[in-house]
Amino acid sequence: MSIHVTIWNEFIHEKKDESVRRIYPNGIHNALKDQLSSESDFVIKTATLDQPEHGLTEEVINHTDVLLWWGHMAHGQVKDEIVNKIADRVRKGMGIILLHSAHASKLMKCLTGCTGSLSWREQNEKQILWNLKPNHPITKGIGEYIVLDKEETYGEPFGIPDPDECIFLSWFSGGNVFRSGWIKNVQNGKLFYFQPGHETFPSYMNPEVIKVIINAIRYLKPLNYIENVDSIWQKEPITS
Amino acid sequence: MSIHVTIWNEFIHEKKDESVRRIYPNGIHNALKDQLSSESDFVIKTATLDQPEHGLTEEVINHTDVLLWWGHMAHGQVKDEIVNKIADRVRKGMGIILLHSAHASKLMKCLTGCTGSLSWREQNEKQILWNLKPNHPITKGIGEYIVLDKEETYGEPFGIPDPDECIFLSWFSGGNVFRSGWIKNVQNGKLFYFQPGHETFPSYMNPEVIKVIINAIRYLKPLNYIENVDSIWQKEPITS
Amino acid sequence: MSIHVTIWNEFIHEKKDESVRRIYPNGIHNALKDQLSSESDFVIKTATLDQPEHGLTEEVINHTDVLLWWGHMAHGQVKDEIVNKIADRVRKGMGIILLHSAHASKLMKCLTGCTGSLSWREQNEKQILWNLKPNHPITKGIGEYIVLDKEETYGEPFGIPDPDECIFLSWFSGGNVFRSGWIKNVQNGKLFYFQPGHETFPSYMNPEVIKVIINAIRYLKPLNYIENVDSIWQKEPITS
Amino acid sequence: MSIHVTIWNEFIHEKKDESVRRIYPNGIHNALKDQLSSESDFVIKTATLDQPEHGLTEEVINHTDVLLWWGHMAHGQVKDEIVNKIADRVRKGMGIILLHSAHASKLMKCLTGCTGSLSWREQNEKQILWNLKPNHPITKGIGEYIVLDKEETYGEPFGIPDPDECIFLSWFSGGNVFRSGWIKNVQNGKLFYFQPGHETFPSYMNPEVIKVIINAIRYLKPLNYIENVDSIWQKEPITS
Repeated sequence: MSIHVTIWNEFIHEKKDESVRRIYPNGIHNALKDQLSSESDFVIKTATLDQPEHGLTEEVINHTDVLLWWGHMAHGQVKDEIVNKIADRVRKGMGIILLHSAHASKLMKCLTGCTGSLSWREQNEKQILWNLKPNHPITKGIGEYIVLDKEETYGEPFGIPDPDECIFLSWFSGGNVFRSGWIKNVQNGKLFYFQPGHETFPSYMNPEVIKVIINAIRYLKPLNYIENVDSIWQKEPITS
Repeated sequence: MSIHVTIWNEFIHEKKDESVRRIYPNGIHNALKDQLSSESDFVIKTATLDQPEHGLTEEVINHTDVLLWWGHMAHGQVKDEIVNKIADRVRKGMGIILLHSAHASKLMKCLTGCTGSLSWREQNEKQILWNLKPNHPITKGIGEYIVLDKEETYGEPFGIPDPDECIFLSWFSGGNVFRSGWIKNVQNGKLFYFQPGHETFPSYMNPEVIKVIINAIRYLKPLNYIENVDSIWQKEPITS
Repeated sequence: MSIHVTIWNEFIHEKKDESVRRIYPNGIHNALKDQLSSESDFVIKTATLDQPEHGLTEEVINHTDVLLWWGHMAHGQVKDEIVNKIADRVRKGMGIILLHSAHASKLMKCLTGCTGSLSWREQNEKQILWNLKPNHPITKGIGEYIVLDKEETYGEPFGIPDPDECIFLSWFSGGNVFRSGWIKNVQNGKLFYFQPGHETFPSYMNPEVIKVIINAIRYLKPLNYIENVDSIWQKEPITS
Repeated sequence: MSIHVTIWNEFIHEKKDESVRRIYPNGIHNALKDQLSSESDFVIKTATLDQPEHGLTEEVINHTDVLLWWGHMAHGQVKDEIVNKIADRVRKGMGIILLHSAHASKLMKCLTGCTGSLSWREQNEKQILWNLKPNHPITKGIGEYIVLDKEETYGEPFGIPDPDECIFLSWFSGGNVFRSGWIKNVQNGKLFYFQPGHETFPSYMNPEVIKVIINAIRYLKPLNYIENVDSIWQKEPITS
């Protein structure tokens, strides 16, 4: 059975900044699409900010099982109307993966009630992601830890709700720790936040990072959609 | 040390509907204020929808430690701007108690990411609230259960995030169960949802219901406010 | 890929009590085995208290992916040594389903630290199990609720840890509510407690109850076993 | 109102090892007692392994509100009977603080169902404990983080249940991260695990470490004891 994956990317850094373009010449969305194309059951679309409706028409949203989201500079340009449609679909069952700087996206706030605040630093620090759940579907094939030689540093306190499942905790050489991978159930859907992926480092070329994303897509795939997320008038007692 | 409590009420049913006015002649907000006035350390204000800024100016919000919220018919009339100011204050540490039909308020959605959907029925059913946490500050002085002879029936599935603490589970004579009292941490603040309080029943005259609300106010009072809930540029490693 | 399921039953009521034997002539374990035999990938064994090592030799335990446990009168006769071997295997990844009166088993206490205390009553009451998680693998194919016309009443407060996932909440006609289905992660394994199944009622003939058990077996199947659950001397820093 | 605190220490390292004795000449228990004596409402007792019943008679246990536990070399010498009496009291409401190497104590396993396994290294590494919950009673008066210049390194994966509240995450200079401070509710009582305190470092002289312990004692103090943690025969429906 197919999983319909939509990869959304803001797609600005890659056009503006030569150093980013060198790593992701066709954009982060296409790099991710290439990496995920190994999975024959994934039906993959991409969408970007500059497209009409940011590439996320109702048609697209309603045929997406798991949405990946990468944004950074232009969180404020994402239309509230689109955010609300996505959030509504998550509440019905769709999975959503917020990548890296999406910690500060409108979707994070809308789906968790929190700002996703953190402390950050760009100093090419080494990162080690420790695997807290070696028997979890998301860490299938991942060992004790993943090492990224250089990443942007993100640090606690992370302004998020208490996660329902905390999967990766990270160490950064400059002294910070960070909850890098965690699940929050949002009504009938699941949100997975996964921190690696600053635009100036090739983290989405890392096979272990990709393995986590592939595993997460499978884990977040809804079994079914609960179309009604409104209150219901249950006229009669159900005891008789 | 004082606790600054603000009781917000939509205050419409009481003006429109004689049967409600008979129970709450001065409005639900004033009934609650009277009940809470036993607590000498509570400094209590009230506010209503029809006041300028719904009675919730920045001055008021910024001097509130715990906000009580009762709304039903007019959720849509509450201005987004006010909702956002309240949510911002909760993220910094303020406590918020969403009462009864506030399950469907803008604040529920904004603070939890979920719709608060449920099933409901008005048939004067008996309700029993079972106390799951007999050693919790919120159930101080409460026995095994609270009985309400008549309440509006609310039933699962309740469209909420997995609670951080689940305190009351309810039984309704018509066959429904409901998570009637639970805590969700929202960044630095706490949200307590508490279900009793349909406008046509005198639940806020019930001494046990009031005891729970008083206990909850004490439990939700912030120790301090974390003023910065935005991301921070931490320029230097903190290892040296 | 096969799932190795072992069904353990105390197997005393069925031999002593005619009214139980009429429902489960070959014992609860064989009734469950029959019901699960629809699943072609399940490799099913049974084991009972009166067998050597209660039928749970190391060989059997080490080839079990998910263990079902039904006990009631003879919790005290289960040898600590066997309990510890089972608990050790759960910590490494095995799934365990504690059925009905196993709330008071040695395994419950050993795996959760809690006594599993509750209140109970045998009055042929009607039970309604409400489905809190309509998009969860364990509720696949289950609607809003399951009705059991007669069951033993179990009531809160239930002396358990805060569940990691709460899936079913029950209503009993006599006024009680109960957390009837929930998951607790125990190191690398998962424990599912599922309440229906008093020996004097045919609850394990109910197709929806069986569907939940089948779903739970699939959900609890470990991806892999983490053989080392002891502390490790990590001699060298892992930064170089 | 007084809080009855009992500090239990294995008290072996201090007698055997000159380097430990130099730091804690009267034992870790007395060092902690001295530090906590600033709190005028704390009524403090100490107890050690070599005393009759390890100093933990029923009289002592039944008059303890919060028990602190430090053990390392001699976990196996602690009598099961005493462990069970302590665990029983925790289930009724007593608070328990497991310090440092108590991660591998019988009490950890008995109260959580998990082994408390971890990886460790003694290389005088720097530790930074990040404060995840700046508005939590346990972190009152604590800033963004606590620095310990030298501690024993403890690392994930930590073989524990998913914490109910995760309060401190640690960074160690050798590349490890660790959940250093967390709460697990055990029926009616609370367990706080707090990692600093290797016997060869003066961590219990650190004013911030002590502040956390003092705060935790206040947070864990039970409001009341639920004497019955056994199942109850509730003979009659409670609907009438």
